[in-house]
Amino acid sequence: MAIKVHGALFSTCTARVLICLCEKGLDYELLPIDMVAGAHKQQPFLSLNPFGEVPAFKDGEVSLFESRAINRYLARKHKDIGTDLLLSNSLTQSALVETWMEVEAHKFDSPSSVILRQIIVIPKYGKAPDEQVIETEMEKLGKVLDVYEERLSKSKYLAGENYSLADLHHIPHLVYFMKTSKASAITSRPHVSAWWNDISSRPATVKISATMSLL
Amino acid sequence: MAIKVHGALFSTCTARVLICLCEKGLDYELLPIDMVAGAHKQQPFLSLNPFGEVPAFKDGEVSLFESRAINRYLARKHKDIGTDLLLSNSLTQSALVETWMEVEAHKFDSPSSVILRQIIVIPKYGKAPDEQVIETEMEKLGKVLDVYEERLSKSKYLAGENYSLADLHHIPHLVYFMKTSKASAITSRPHVSAWWNDISSRPATVKISATMSLL
Repeated sequence: MAIKVHGALFSTCTARVLICLCEKGLDYELLPIDMVAGAHKQQPFLSLNPFGEVPAFKDGEVSLFESRAINRYLARKHKDIGTDLLLSNSLTQSALVETWMEVEAHKFDSPSSVILRQIIVIPKYGKAPDEQVIETEMEKLGKVLDVYEERLSKSKYLAGENYSLADLHHIPHLVYFMKTSKASAITSRPHVSAWWNDISSRPATVKISATMSLL
Repeated sequence: MAIKVHGALFSTCTARVLICLCEKGLDYELLPIDMVAGAHKQQPFLSLNPFGEVPAFKDGEVSLFESRAINRYLARKHKDIGTDLLLSNSLTQSALVETWMEVEAHKFDSPSSVILRQIIVIPKYGKAPDEQVIETEMEKLGKVLDVYEERLSKSKYLAGENYSLADLHHIPHLVYFMKTSKASAITSRPHVSAWWNDISSRPATVKISATMSLL
């Protein structure tokens, strides 16, 4: 039975799971949810994710939601296919993956989400972005990226010398962010820029980012 | 070499790690960080956590931060002591633990943090809480707790029939929340209330919550 991803191509959380599936070379079926019509806030979708957010995921009898949890499941189940995205052979390495996944979730996700919403989503509804909000969130994001710059001056990837979910989880937001006028926040930081060049050129990233439909 | 936790007794993120250590019966040394004096935003603390937030954690040569990542490390390393907090013997069960840990981090943490800040922290500085903010966040939290109520009507704990980090991670915020006038958000939902009665009466919770010094 093929893996089923209920989601939307423009959604960064859907893309996060698709990139992981693609890294592992797994077949999947993408079942589009009409979010414009609010299908994610109604049944039958709510039985897949009671919080009404994409993606929802099914692998046979296993039914999950929350993109980062789905990716941990995929990385664990298919550890031996391709890159071991949790670096699970080393307790210390895997703990660093966990730490930098939490950094992505608690430090990077919020400011980058707000910025993308202001710069990309709001204008699609014919409204003007709030420049003050953008400035505040860019300042927060800049401080986070300063820590990344220092970190990436000492190791090739966030969790060490190997690519992991800690890096992968950043990709969907950065795909959109790099198409905005704020991309210099990445390109002006040499080690962050080299990291982005590396992770954005992986075949799985190239393949899925080409399908991300918000831009 | 004993485990070292650099943190503060009033901090919910510090308490999250201490409860996990206590569940596992591990010895540790709590090294207080004088957050009122801003020690967490200066060296030498910044070399332990470049984001300047407690707790930071050392276990021999392993240096980590982010409470939820520290707990995953502890649960994995000491899987065979006491309760297996990641339910790691079953891929499906552990994926449900991951899903509900993400729910805590992305749905529960933010509104409960804002409410605690308004009701408990701001009055300590002689200021009045913003009732409008409290109302907005209580509405968000209520929707999350409605999903928990439904979930906990079907399983004893969030990830299934066994206690896990998905439950434990909620404890520090709820310890404080239950001492506020908003506690009825928990007690008015029968299954959420029974769940809280269960997880708050575990010896590790009782021991650490008695030391949480914000109230």
